[in-house]
Amino acid sequence: MSILEIIEKKKNGLELNKIEITEAFMGYMNGSVEDYQMSSLLMAIVINGMSFEETINLTDIMLYSGKRLDTKKVEGIMVDKHSTGGVGDKTSLIIGPIMAALGLKMGKLSGRGLGFTGGTIDKLESIPGFRVALTTDEFIFDLNKVGFTECEQTPEFTPLDKKIYDLRSVTGTVSSIPLIASSIMSKKLAVGAEYILIDIKVGSGALIKTKKDAIELANTMIEIGKAYNRTVIPVLTNMSRPLGDNVGNALEVIEAMDILKGKNGSLKDLCIELSSALYSRCRHINLDVATREVKKVLDDGSAYNKFIEFTKIQGGDIEKIELSENIIPIKSKTSGTLKDISAEEIGKLALELGGGRKKKGETIDYGVGVVINKHIGNSINEGDVLCYLYQRDNLDRSSEALKAFSIVK
Amino acid sequence: MSILEIIEKKKNGLELNKIEITEAFMGYMNGSVEDYQMSSLLMAIVINGMSFEETINLTDIMLYSGKRLDTKKVEGIMVDKHSTGGVGDKTSLIIGPIMAALGLKMGKLSGRGLGFTGGTIDKLESIPGFRVALTTDEFIFDLNKVGFTECEQTPEFTPLDKKIYDLRSVTGTVSSIPLIASSIMSKKLAVGAEYILIDIKVGSGALIKTKKDAIELANTMIEIGKAYNRTVIPVLTNMSRPLGDNVGNALEVIEAMDILKGKNGSLKDLCIELSSALYSRCRHINLDVATREVKKVLDDGSAYNKFIEFTKIQGGDIEKIELSENIIPIKSKTSGTLKDISAEEIGKLALELGGGRKKKGETIDYGVGVVINKHIGNSINEGDVLCYLYQRDNLDRSSEALKAFSIVK
Repeated sequence: MSILEIIEKKKNGLELNKIEITEAFMGYMNGSVEDYQMSSLLMAIVINGMSFEETINLTDIMLYSGKRLDTKKVEGIMVDKHSTGGVGDKTSLIIGPIMAALGLKMGKLSGRGLGFTGGTIDKLESIPGFRVALTTDEFIFDLNKVGFTECEQTPEFTPLDKKIYDLRSVTGTVSSIPLIASSIMSKKLAVGAEYILIDIKVGSGALIKTKKDAIELANTMIEIGKAYNRTVIPVLTNMSRPLGDNVGNALEVIEAMDILKGKNGSLKDLCIELSSALYSRCRHINLDVATREVKKVLDDGSAYNKFIEFTKIQGGDIEKIELSENIIPIKSKTSGTLKDISAEEIGKLALELGGGRKKKGETIDYGVGVVINKHIGNSINEGDVLCYLYQRDNLDRSSEALKAFSIVK
Repeated sequence: MSILEIIEKKKNGLELNKIEITEAFMGYMNGSVEDYQMSSLLMAIVINGMSFEETINLTDIMLYSGKRLDTKKVEGIMVDKHSTGGVGDKTSLIIGPIMAALGLKMGKLSGRGLGFTGGTIDKLESIPGFRVALTTDEFIFDLNKVGFTECEQTPEFTPLDKKIYDLRSVTGTVSSIPLIASSIMSKKLAVGAEYILIDIKVGSGALIKTKKDAIELANTMIEIGKAYNRTVIPVLTNMSRPLGDNVGNALEVIEAMDILKGKNGSLKDLCIELSSALYSRCRHINLDVATREVKKVLDDGSAYNKFIEFTKIQGGDIEKIELSENIIPIKSKTSGTLKDISAEEIGKLALELGGGRKKKGETIDYGVGVVINKHIGNSINEGDVLCYLYQRDNLDRSSEALKAFSIVK
């Protein structure tokens, strides 16, 4: 069957069999199917969907498009964690060190930012010297030594997923449950963790906008996990609002460190909840006991120490993190109560400031971003600073910034 | 609004306004929108449709992407004719000369073949020396002199349509009523005829598969015509079967000449019907009177003479038309009555023989094709020749060829 016939079939809402999925996707991998043909097929998949059978087949092709980590070399219980992404989401930089401090092995392959949601790899690159590209041997060495490693998915692992992911990010074909599930799961399966925590963000600031979609995604991933004998632990978390106060690459690394050093707030609470859910499943212990252990490694500084070990072994120097010095306060024009902060608007703002990419291969400015200065429920007076923009230019973005804050009299 | 936001909007089934359509399509024209982004948007349009307002706006952008013919320089009533394409459709090469012989001016800009349906420009190029690329001045000069001119839509006219058309043909995004309507109408509006006959082919061998879609397309084009003060005359014709006996570029030119020289059959009847419909509207005369006039110019050879004038002025030498000499008869393996001939199967066969293109820019073999030797209703004996394949290689294509013929005992 030709690629045109395969596209037409999916356009007409029919199910593709394993041979057709292989022809289209391996054809894209080896260059016989063009970018513009794959994006057309992807859009048909986004709109018309994919069956569970199709999703498993696509996952399998992505998984076997590259090599798999030999997990026999990893000492101890290997865990993994994935967030479907959101605005200001730096949870893996907090949960990873916690898991390492608890004696588990969290090794992650991650991606870059998509549209207005950031990617952990971009955040890590804001640490001068930090190497996001590791060989398999380095990855396993670091993981056994530190207990937490995070690097960019290399051309060796699921190269097809990377190629598809890059194309989706510039063709409006990101928000699709089967494509998201097969992308996440192929990466997780290639790394080989036994226990996989999936933090599914739901809300206006996330890739998944509704609870219904989140449950569908969770079930799809649990089923894919079962097919490969892995335990997938989905947790749905609200993401209509930005996660934490800082949005922007370097700003988010700084906030992750602040939390590991003791800063309280809703982001810390979330990280404790997620870490406890994962830890209790791995150790087969009660959730309360797990929560106590998690809080202990936060309070005694051992999680923070793991973060330092992690950045050092990958070459990063946190002392050299650089932020833009052009900090513009955004002041409220009204008085009232802060009812909502739109994650989507804040995300778009960070993108406009240069902290994200709209197109394949665009460069990112790590030092720009938004620091939110007020929390939901705070009473606001006219002239109060709602947030600070870390920017390079002198453009006035106050009207865009004010759009993110709903203040009710 | 960014191209990603525009794609997402259409993906979600929302209507795009004029500014958004302009941004996306003019962005594609000037290179700021990539092929893979446009094909993704096109697939969303194919699946989710376009409102009449959107279709008009797209037509307008395509029309004004290039220059328009100054029809003041054309002497007399200018008419145009378009067929939505089908297998073996060479009607414009017959109707054009008829119109010219009747004193009207038919000037056509045409496209190339798409998938298994042929394009008139490819057919004309099978005449050695025939120039399908004309300047505007040449086009008008030839039209005033001969009364019938057909050339390739040049980069000067609707360049955006050409760019989109090329992309659609390789991305499975051909079959869409708003995209077909805006493509056809932008080209017709750029040439500027007052009366536009649209022969909408319906059936398995055509781009439009159902009568419902054909009527929707007809109404869309009538409305676009009204918006620009033109008379659109849609005629629906059945196209489950190949049109005439010959399929393949040079073979079709030869069949068109045969009909102009007097060969009878269903294709001649169709051309008389279409010509009469157009002529009666232009001259405001009764259909019977128009039909008599049409038959007269066929019978007295003046239409054929116009065909000769037309090919000569554009540099073509019909004496030099070349056909493959490797002619393989396909013999029936059963006896019975010929109930049906599949246009789609014959079209695919001609494509496989090398007479069409599967991918952007592929070269065509003008001398190959299929000559059908039996008609619907004929009684067939085992061993009778159903068709002849004009091929270059010695591959055995008898099983593919036999699939096109339904013989019932």
